[in-house]
Amino acid sequence: MSEIASVTEWRERSPRRPAARADDVGRHNLALVVQHVAARGTASRAEIARATRLTKGTVSTHVQELLKLELLVELGTQPDGRVGRPHSDLALNGSGHCGIGVEINVDYIAVCVSDLLDKVRFHRIDVLENRAIDPGHVLDRAAELVRTAIAAAEADGLAPAGIAAAVAGTVELETGAVLVAPNLGWTGVPVVDELVERLSLIDVPVVADNEANLAALAELWLGIGGESGSYVHVSGDIGVGAGIVVGGALFRGVRGFAGEIGHVVVDRNGDPCSCGGRGCLERFAGQDAIFRAAGLPSTTATALGHPDNPLYGLIERLERGDEAASAAVRVAAEALGIGLAGVVNVIDPDTIILGGTYAPLAPWLADSLRESLVRQVIASEWRPIEIRVSELGPDAAVRGAAAWIVQRLLAAPDVLASR
Amino acid sequence: MSEIASVTEWRERSPRRPAARADDVGRHNLALVVQHVAARGTASRAEIARATRLTKGTVSTHVQELLKLELLVELGTQPDGRVGRPHSDLALNGSGHCGIGVEINVDYIAVCVSDLLDKVRFHRIDVLENRAIDPGHVLDRAAELVRTAIAAAEADGLAPAGIAAAVAGTVELETGAVLVAPNLGWTGVPVVDELVERLSLIDVPVVADNEANLAALAELWLGIGGESGSYVHVSGDIGVGAGIVVGGALFRGVRGFAGEIGHVVVDRNGDPCSCGGRGCLERFAGQDAIFRAAGLPSTTATALGHPDNPLYGLIERLERGDEAASAAVRVAAEALGIGLAGVVNVIDPDTIILGGTYAPLAPWLADSLRESLVRQVIASEWRPIEIRVSELGPDAAVRGAAAWIVQRLLAAPDVLASR
Repeated sequence: MSEIASVTEWRERSPRRPAARADDVGRHNLALVVQHVAARGTASRAEIARATRLTKGTVSTHVQELLKLELLVELGTQPDGRVGRPHSDLALNGSGHCGIGVEINVDYIAVCVSDLLDKVRFHRIDVLENRAIDPGHVLDRAAELVRTAIAAAEADGLAPAGIAAAVAGTVELETGAVLVAPNLGWTGVPVVDELVERLSLIDVPVVADNEANLAALAELWLGIGGESGSYVHVSGDIGVGAGIVVGGALFRGVRGFAGEIGHVVVDRNGDPCSCGGRGCLERFAGQDAIFRAAGLPSTTATALGHPDNPLYGLIERLERGDEAASAAVRVAAEALGIGLAGVVNVIDPDTIILGGTYAPLAPWLADSLRESLVRQVIASEWRPIEIRVSELGPDAAVRGAAAWIVQRLLAAPDVLASR
Repeated sequence: MSEIASVTEWRERSPRRPAARADDVGRHNLALVVQHVAARGTASRAEIARATRLTKGTVSTHVQELLKLELLVELGTQPDGRVGRPHSDLALNGSGHCGIGVEINVDYIAVCVSDLLDKVRFHRIDVLENRAIDPGHVLDRAAELVRTAIAAAEADGLAPAGIAAAVAGTVELETGAVLVAPNLGWTGVPVVDELVERLSLIDVPVVADNEANLAALAELWLGIGGESGSYVHVSGDIGVGAGIVVGGALFRGVRGFAGEIGHVVVDRNGDPCSCGGRGCLERFAGQDAIFRAAGLPSTTATALGHPDNPLYGLIERLERGDEAASAAVRVAAEALGIGLAGVVNVIDPDTIILGGTYAPLAPWLADSLRESLVRQVIASEWRPIEIRVSELGPDAAVRGAAAWIVQRLLAAPDVLASR
């Protein structure tokens, strides 16, 4: 469930992994040092030694290696107001390594390059109606965008540490295969293997996860999720996905398929859904359903963030009090409230974060959603649910993917040494 | 989330808790030794030393204390087929301490005495229409039954180590207060405080939890739950409750209210529910709803296990193929399938355990339930959900309550030394 566990797993599949016990301790301490700096922003060697309880000598050795690996930089000596030698502050190196994220969604592909400080160094969205074309062609295009992102990173002096794909479907974490993606119409697509094949000249790890999981993790690493630590991040796109974070870690369930809120039933007599069920939340609160109910064209290759996306037309109508638009959002909010109330009744988080399309729609969604939650959540009087709005916007999943690579690197910095 | 964490919390509130660091290590090792014996059934001192990596001397000292505290017994010397002294096997002492469980449910109160081997030494159900009377009277009756159970335990040579109440409502674990119990009609009833007051002469800890949680834990400790370790235990009584176990620990959520599946919406246009919402699962799959749909009288003070309970009439009708009874169970199974599919989509367990009324009804429920799950669970092809039937029957919650006291004692055996 934790990221450190994922990294271990990842590294266990690498033939380069040394087996000696003393190495394990060294690796662990190396990660401890870099993570302390990452958590604090800046730190001196003495502060690191105090916080980690490692000896100053051990800290110095590890810092030396981390500087050599271009994970840390010296900020120069700073007077610390005390007697003795001025100390030298360390920070993460924003000019060394980077993570590459690629998001494969229903009507767009996005790529993003993030440095160790989670600063976006390159970002591009390609509007593409992925439902209409063969998965192989979608992956061709995704690989091409990744190559573009890598070229941009390298031109910027950054070395890619890995590539993470965020896919709008259920992903098997161990293999990186999409098992089923109803909105893309995909079944059994080995995304990681296909990307590795297409990017055969690039020698970095490739991983994949569900986009809702990565959007929820983005909220934890880059957004407002760290303040609660136990929340459900729900994002409305063409599908409706959720990522559940409990005690600061993504809750994946037994097989990693947790959070599929889009197919929670809100009306057992409702319309059939692409998943094979009927009356699913997506049929009421997915983007297409809202646009259709508001009398707008449904999304056809108009990504969020793209000016032609009907979302902006919807918002404009909501702002001038258009009846059909208001009713469409109210229906969506009520359905979302019913689905989320079920989630709150069952897993008891304290915060709901509205992401994706729901973030810009929040001013019109939040009241109906809150009412629906209060009505359906048992003991709601004793557990007020905070509803918050994501500040990451539509880029959450692709930024989460790039940040995932950075998180993995900081959790196991020694992988660089063995390369 | 783990039981050990709960015990720590419980002990931190005790003024008797010593603060020294060496004591912490000793306490931890004492628990380690007794828990090794509990896990294995029997073990020799040498086996314990090997498994725990404690020295033989330390193990001997702790075993001596555990014998003195009446937590362990010597089974007598056994030849072990090897050269040297014959070893002496140790086992949990079934004649020393016991846990007292009391279940306060909608139409009955049950008590149970379990020894350290989880053997039921006393069990009694009092049929009582608790909805119609004041909570104070219900608690009077519960306290009286607890006194009866304690008298029976003492007559049997057992010393109660604590009392655990399983209540059909949302319980705040820290205070043992029921916040809301829609089916009992209770709001804000401090169950633990009230029981402590009524049992003022009895100097043992009193704790409380939700009955669905304790039924799910009973499955882990005494039933089939240990085989999967990640399951949803759903029990049908007048309410419908679930306990979620993930990786061998109860998943409580942020405030301990997780698992309230009875109020998950299955029909947003359905009838109003006692919780204030509408179309809740309970309205379709609760005992009363099933009985009513089958043309049977609803439960009035006829506990499960009681021969007058309409359940036996229902089963008799199902066995002879009665149309109304079959239709009633089919409707319940479909609704249960919709509610559980939502839970599976959101938390991704691998097993569902049917408990309470659902256990005896399983032969007529399971097929419709399975169909409903396959239809509504996304990626169900890649995650077959095992549906299993609880063997603990209607006593799961009260047995789980008594076993909880035993679990707490084995996790912190030193509390006996300080008494």
